Amino acid sequence: MRIALDAMGGDYAPAATVEGAIDALAENNGISVVLVGDEPAIKTEIEKKKYSGSQVTVRHASQVVEMDESPLTAIRRKKDSSIKVAIDLVKDGHADAMVSAGNSGVVMATSLLVLGKLPGVERPAIAAVMPSLRDHFVLIDAGANVDCKPVHLHQFAVMGKAYARFIFNIDNPKIGLLGIGEEDAKGNELTKESFKLLKNANMNFIGNIEGKDVFEGEADVVVCDGFVGNIALKIAEGLGETMLKMLKREIMDRSTGKLGAFILKDALKSFKKKTDYSEYGGAPLLGLSSPCIIGHGRSTSKAIKNAIMVAGTFHSKGILEIISKEINDGITRRDKVAVEE
Amino acid sequence: MRIALDAMGGDYAPAATVEGAIDALAENNGISVVLVGDEPAIKTEIEKKKYSGSQVTVRHASQVVEMDESPLTAIRRKKDSSIKVAIDLVKDGHADAMVSAGNSGVVMATSLLVLGKLPGVERPAIAAVMPSLRDHFVLIDAGANVDCKPVHLHQFAVMGKAYARFIFNIDNPKIGLLGIGEEDAKGNELTKESFKLLKNANMNFIGNIEGKDVFEGEADVVVCDGFVGNIALKIAEGLGETMLKMLKREIMDRSTGKLGAFILKDALKSFKKKTDYSEYGGAPLLGLSSPCIIGHGRSTSKAIKNAIMVAGTFHSKGILEIISKEINDGITRRDKVAVEE
Repeated sequence: MRIALDAMGGDYAPAATVEGAIDALAENNGISVVLVGDEPAIKTEIEKKKYSGSQVTVRHASQVVEMDESPLTAIRRKKDSSIKVAIDLVKDGHADAMVSAGNSGVVMATSLLVLGKLPGVERPAIAAVMPSLRDHFVLIDAGANVDCKPVHLHQFAVMGKAYARFIFNIDNPKIGLLGIGEEDAKGNELTKESFKLLKNANMNFIGNIEGKDVFEGEADVVVCDGFVGNIALKIAEGLGETMLKMLKREIMDRSTGKLGAFILKDALKSFKKKTDYSEYGGAPLLGLSSPCIIGHGRSTSKAIKNAIMVAGTFHSKGILEIISKEINDGITRRDKVAVEE
Repeated sequence: MRIALDAMGGDYAPAATVEGAIDALAENNGISVVLVGDEPAIKTEIEKKKYSGSQVTVRHASQVVEMDESPLTAIRRKKDSSIKVAIDLVKDGHADAMVSAGNSGVVMATSLLVLGKLPGVERPAIAAVMPSLRDHFVLIDAGANVDCKPVHLHQFAVMGKAYARFIFNIDNPKIGLLGIGEEDAKGNELTKESFKLLKNANMNFIGNIEGKDVFEGEADVVVCDGFVGNIALKIAEGLGETMLKMLKREIMDRSTGKLGAFILKDALKSFKKKTDYSEYGGAPLLGLSSPCIIGHGRSTSKAIKNAIMVAGTFHSKGILEIISKEINDGITRRDKVAVEE
């Protein structure tokens, strides 16, 4: 499997991207990586890592998209950006998947424009994996679509279901609709209408799920619009980091601080690992015709490595075929229900 | 100051409500509490607490609103519920404020119907206090209004500002709009339009604030619609609890578990205190003509006590007068800007 990596994407690129790519190859020898971006800078990093194998190649791109650039400007003015060139490699059949920790708005807009959607998909959505007390769950949409209609949330559920089956290895994932109360009739206009669609869909729909229950692991897939999803994701990320800081402060403020910190070192490390976004690498933009993995802007080399691993397993499992089939089954089913009503 | 307390509201009522009321009186002798609900049950609890003072009185109400009852049904069928009777006490001038940890939808609908809004307020909103690394911030609306217009978010900002000035004792609170990116143009339709209103408003508007930054304490007031706010609040609550559970599990799973837990006991306790909702008691429904404080459904006696303390300080500080004035200044200002444009 050949992965096109935006080597210039993310706060620590290209050092973190090159290192992440080389580390990924060490773990999975079934993949190869094309590092896309400023060739001299990338080659310097490769030399630093003393990598001399043939599974990493470099493809020069003369431009870099800044983190705060608008998709419209970037698409118009940066036709030779590392993001655009990496996506083109997938389009032209030189790579099977694309990974970027760069400007996510630009990655989404460009991949949608260049790669296009799977037949039947209305809007691709970001599927982010988050930790729960039981294990993990998929949050979809984690930020691709800010204003949604019920039919979009229905498709997010279908795509999230396919993805959860694939990554958690479960047959019939439990699907919850993120809302403000468990009762059927609670929510805003969007979720109340979406609830009806999901209830009639061919899935293990467990109803509305409240923010406080998602981390209990009651649902394997939590569905929402991209505005709400992004806020939920960022609230969780921000609170996670803040809690660790507050806790460390509390521990160190005491006379037993050093001993406490010493004893806790391992526990905190393991805890951090479980709640750390970089362990989950990137979040796929589901619904595109080819895998496209979006990494966190602050991706470390470990996060990049894990994002590449996500991309690497994607192709072999036929996840896109499952999504395509289920989306079209869903459309047929919705039409049928509409006719029957 | 006389407070009407819904003695039947919350999972641990009436034991927790009666205990909370008596504890509040011990801390603030400027208040008195009317316990509203099932008289025999309340009196039993008062006897258990061996309270014999005159600052607590009981007002019988024959009905109790269940936690999952719809506002419409409750308002129609339970005209003698503890919620309704407590609110009536305020309306009729027998109490100055109302506190309930019962069905929040019913409390909101009934108080709006019976007490009415301050002149100029379009929709009352819940102002929840949340912890940040710096100190605390006010999240408004934390769940009263699911589908909002920009003008509502503008008013939430005005009310949140007045409340933050009052509880944090700061002159010019920083107001942030909860969104998915710091740039002005990012967000959904609602926040993009609200951004323009807030930019022109007479307040210290710091722009969009992302979920990950709210806990850094960058804004004193975080504004959003009630659907998003409720999800943010519950995500934070759920994650906070989950993280503590995960951390305890990590600590106890090790051979140093007992020692670690012993050393950490104080730090964890202090940490929990900072992040525990019950420390903040209740969240006021701002914009009503009288103070109405909504407690958490799982309110312990401490949470009830703190909710009463919130209500107790409310009246003396003229917060409602400030809100009323600023809302009407805001309306004048908006009209003026509209005319000038």
